[in-house]
Amino acid sequence: MASGLLLVISGPSGAGKGTICKKLIETNPQIKVSVSATTRKARDGEIDGVNYFFLEKEKFKDMLSKDEFLEYATVYDNYYGTPKNYVLENLKNGNDVLLEIDIEGALQIKEKFPQGVFVFILPPSMEELKSRIVGRGTETKEDIDKRFGSALEEIKQVIKYDYAVVNDELTRAKNDIEAIIRAERCKVIRAYEDIQTRF
Amino acid sequence: MASGLLLVISGPSGAGKGTICKKLIETNPQIKVSVSATTRKARDGEIDGVNYFFLEKEKFKDMLSKDEFLEYATVYDNYYGTPKNYVLENLKNGNDVLLEIDIEGALQIKEKFPQGVFVFILPPSMEELKSRIVGRGTETKEDIDKRFGSALEEIKQVIKYDYAVVNDELTRAKNDIEAIIRAERCKVIRAYEDIQTRF
Repeated sequence: MASGLLLVISGPSGAGKGTICKKLIETNPQIKVSVSATTRKARDGEIDGVNYFFLEKEKFKDMLSKDEFLEYATVYDNYYGTPKNYVLENLKNGNDVLLEIDIEGALQIKEKFPQGVFVFILPPSMEELKSRIVGRGTETKEDIDKRFGSALEEIKQVIKYDYAVVNDELTRAKNDIEAIIRAERCKVIRAYEDIQTRF
Repeated sequence: MASGLLLVISGPSGAGKGTICKKLIETNPQIKVSVSATTRKARDGEIDGVNYFFLEKEKFKDMLSKDEFLEYATVYDNYYGTPKNYVLENLKNGNDVLLEIDIEGALQIKEKFPQGVFVFILPPSMEELKSRIVGRGTETKEDIDKRFGSALEEIKQVIKYDYAVVNDELTRAKNDIEAIIRAERCKVIRAYEDIQTRF
């Protein structure tokens, strides 16, 4: 059986990657969503193995020392990471795996798993990006300027990705990603082993 | 305006590339078909600039000396080639250009224009390939064996292509190619200039 694809989706805040991923999963049941591990405590309603794998700090460090994460980060006093095993098992079983992740995490994964498909979600324009950030309505002008500046910095990282999808219209952006998945399956570099066995 | 894509489609005889290309053009009016040049005489009903550009041998050789072909070949006493200018003008105007061509021609083009999208059409299986070759019903057993052997040799060249599309079902194969076109447009390497001007 052909291996699944690891689809890594990221982009600056305000690009709308969360919405796109949700839509993508709804209409593509063969895509499994990667579940992150964290050492923070579960909040009310969060389920272990669904929202996160909740791990003790010692366990997380032990896994780190065994190179069992595709990427990890520390936020305040907690660890967050993508367990390798869950992803690789799903790929081996022919399932595609979706990983929605920040740019730093995505670039760590690219180092460890370059055969992944790296997609950057772009806002349609600078103006639209700004209006989306302002639209949250909860932040001061200073915060907004800071977020906007950091989004522009993040967009520079697009050059390290395979594909850029502009989120101007949700369905169109989702269709782009579906086309990317379909095209990637046709890549000779992925299909060659299978072709060799057949001819 | 973003440049169009040069889509180079080839594959062994019996793979059905002609049928796929015809279907693709019918439903994608933005795709222009590359017109070959030849020094052979026009046959009844053939129109210059539609079926071929019919050229005098001297003119063809002059163009060759000026590197004005993406690829060329001689068959018996005639030249056949793909004029560069027609293709590049269309790409510049944002049109995709489709080139259905034998493997030798495709690999010449890849040398000169590596940014093309190179798609190899595969028959669904060895058995099906053989039955398609036999199905023509006009050839001796010896001819059939020879064509089959040469098709298998040609299939080995798939490794030099970007994508392999299996022609098991016409619409599915056409949809694969449409997905490839759509995904290629999202490639960062193609969209980067445009992204840079917008952010």
